[in-house]
Amino acid sequence: MNHGEGRDRFATQRLETLIDGIFAIAMTLLVFNIKLPERAEIAGGAELAAALAALVPHFSAFVQSFLLLGLFWFVSHRQMRAIRHADARFVWITLLWLMAVVLVPFSTSLNGEFGRYWEGAAFFHGNLLIIGLLSFSIWQYADRKALIHESLSAAAIRAGKRRGLLFPLVALLALAVAPWSPGWSNLFYLLIPAALPLLGRNDGAR
Amino acid sequence: MNHGEGRDRFATQRLETLIDGIFAIAMTLLVFNIKLPERAEIAGGAELAAALAALVPHFSAFVQSFLLLGLFWFVSHRQMRAIRHADARFVWITLLWLMAVVLVPFSTSLNGEFGRYWEGAAFFHGNLLIIGLLSFSIWQYADRKALIHESLSAAAIRAGKRRGLLFPLVALLALAVAPWSPGWSNLFYLLIPAALPLLGRNDGAR
Amino acid sequence: MNHGEGRDRFATQRLETLIDGIFAIAMTLLVFNIKLPERAEIAGGAELAAALAALVPHFSAFVQSFLLLGLFWFVSHRQMRAIRHADARFVWITLLWLMAVVLVPFSTSLNGEFGRYWEGAAFFHGNLLIIGLLSFSIWQYADRKALIHESLSAAAIRAGKRRGLLFPLVALLALAVAPWSPGWSNLFYLLIPAALPLLGRNDGAR
Amino acid sequence: MNHGEGRDRFATQRLETLIDGIFAIAMTLLVFNIKLPERAEIAGGAELAAALAALVPHFSAFVQSFLLLGLFWFVSHRQMRAIRHADARFVWITLLWLMAVVLVPFSTSLNGEFGRYWEGAAFFHGNLLIIGLLSFSIWQYADRKALIHESLSAAAIRAGKRRGLLFPLVALLALAVAPWSPGWSNLFYLLIPAALPLLGRNDGAR
Repeated sequence: MNHGEGRDRFATQRLETLIDGIFAIAMTLLVFNIKLPERAEIAGGAELAAALAALVPHFSAFVQSFLLLGLFWFVSHRQMRAIRHADARFVWITLLWLMAVVLVPFSTSLNGEFGRYWEGAAFFHGNLLIIGLLSFSIWQYADRKALIHESLSAAAIRAGKRRGLLFPLVALLALAVAPWSPGWSNLFYLLIPAALPLLGRNDGAR
Repeated sequence: MNHGEGRDRFATQRLETLIDGIFAIAMTLLVFNIKLPERAEIAGGAELAAALAALVPHFSAFVQSFLLLGLFWFVSHRQMRAIRHADARFVWITLLWLMAVVLVPFSTSLNGEFGRYWEGAAFFHGNLLIIGLLSFSIWQYADRKALIHESLSAAAIRAGKRRGLLFPLVALLALAVAPWSPGWSNLFYLLIPAALPLLGRNDGAR
Repeated sequence: MNHGEGRDRFATQRLETLIDGIFAIAMTLLVFNIKLPERAEIAGGAELAAALAALVPHFSAFVQSFLLLGLFWFVSHRQMRAIRHADARFVWITLLWLMAVVLVPFSTSLNGEFGRYWEGAAFFHGNLLIIGLLSFSIWQYADRKALIHESLSAAAIRAGKRRGLLFPLVALLALAVAPWSPGWSNLFYLLIPAALPLLGRNDGAR
Repeated sequence: MNHGEGRDRFATQRLETLIDGIFAIAMTLLVFNIKLPERAEIAGGAELAAALAALVPHFSAFVQSFLLLGLFWFVSHRQMRAIRHADARFVWITLLWLMAVVLVPFSTSLNGEFGRYWEGAAFFHGNLLIIGLLSFSIWQYADRKALIHESLSAAAIRAGKRRGLLFPLVALLALAVAPWSPGWSNLFYLLIPAALPLLGRNDGAR
């Protein structure tokens, strides 16, 4: 099928299947951080309601991480459809990025369980910072090696880089604030939907 | 590949891969709510049979949720093949819908373990209500933004909306009955296969 | 894309993605039935080797179920590529079949842990019997509703049915023998690779 | 779709979907070997940092196995795109290979938890050896049965075999050294990125 592509060129199709599979699993496994109350501790409906209320921090950690993973998936989706073909190094940078993505269920549960200590929150933000930097590197590398479709204008590629820097910057900000206020540091991610339109969303295909 | 689609248009293919992956995982993980009997508690075949019989509520919660997830998947399958292309907001509504789908293994185990308290049953029905409302919103949004294939008649689109309202209505009914009879409230979902044919299944492609 | 197929016709592509996803997960989750030895119980290499040797029944249950799931996947693969298009009932029979497939990791762990009691082995064989019967029903239904490619000869379709009956028969045999010898009943599945060539594997495309 | 392929010829597309799904799951499940610290044992941030530091062996086992699985996936990706079509035996060798791949999360956790005993490290290396040998067999079989695209030169096929032998050799070396130094035996895998370019990476499409 893709055989005619030449020695070091790969269609991105199977890489996309792997990405979609890993995101589907990581996003679904997030729910396992919400532990069912123990049967022995629940003697009635009111106790069940109280036990569910006590799970609220885990629910909000779930929502936060699901939406962030959804955002990463969407950004990757936009990147990949702009890629003409991949080379071996492109595949490996993407695999490193996936390795950081796969850690999100762990760092989410750490943040949900120990988010009141800055070490827990910092691990989470550090995880997201690495994801953001690797996502930026994928785009940067694709540009440098001319793996992007010619029809994408230089301005659109630059806008993609600007937007790609937003995420690591926000994670860095959250990381810096975590020692002072680990809980509030999570709110910085709300900056992303607010800031994205200002960074030229509409002047590029990415 | 899909690059020529324009700035804010996306082929739904990768979104469908993500949906299929998430449903495959959520449907498979349902089985983990059926816990293997503890080795120490089983001294013979009769005890094993008794332990398996004690799992019947968990088996029926598994069957119920598997079939409901199968129904959601099928409805989404029909919706997606009627979609010409997606835009960014369409993707995000779908991601919100998937976030509610991903919660089903948790709310199923809650319903299986604590379904005799209305709070447990209500959490389950509430989860399904949100899924139904978001599924309806996807179709509604696609209609409003003209993302649906032109070949689909206005009558077929309306029939799709009618059918799309059936599910939230049933979940709402189950939610309302849960305080009186949490166990029986689950039976309302049997209305769906009975009512669907009456809502014009055959006059539209959805 | 598939929109032009008409009201009640579906391309099998997304169904195949769901099938592949569910099999990939069920086959991978089988490994979770092999529990890591507890750290506190291992004081040296010899104890680790003994703990691994004690896991042999779980390893062989894993190998057995992985190969059986591989066989089901392969049979389904052959069936699906002979299907011209699906209808709604075809999708639902397939979903029921997947529901039985999803139970395999549970019934495997039951067989691995309690296979010395016939109740444990019988649950496993019963699970496989249902999978086999539903797989046969899928082919039977597709034939009755003329969903199979015209290029497949009537002889090839009949050969497919003959082979499709082999599996339920073997599971039934294992089920019947389980009360006498639960452990040995698992060996009946070795009949399948021996018998398949005799049933006309080479006279049909299935 | 693929129906016109003839009795015993299969397009590799669905096999690739199964492979991608199994790798996506195995790679994601690796993270479950990194266990969250117990809440009861963490009374402050410093204790959390110490607990995370104690997880370093599990993190490095995770990184090692993720990259090795990434390498297997990539090698398989290159192999599969050179395959014109598969036959039944090709599918079964691939399923055996996937059975060994699926064991990696287990053998990784064994190596992370009991890697200081050579029995634990040897199990891990033995698992990788089997994966490498089966991966080599897939290529060997495809060559023998002329399943490879004609456009691939004999030299490129031979280079693929040379590279395919590298991995089992390294695993064998690690296995041989494990009794003397189980911990250091893991470092042999670093030979792979060093040696691959010397084996004619650039003279073949594989």
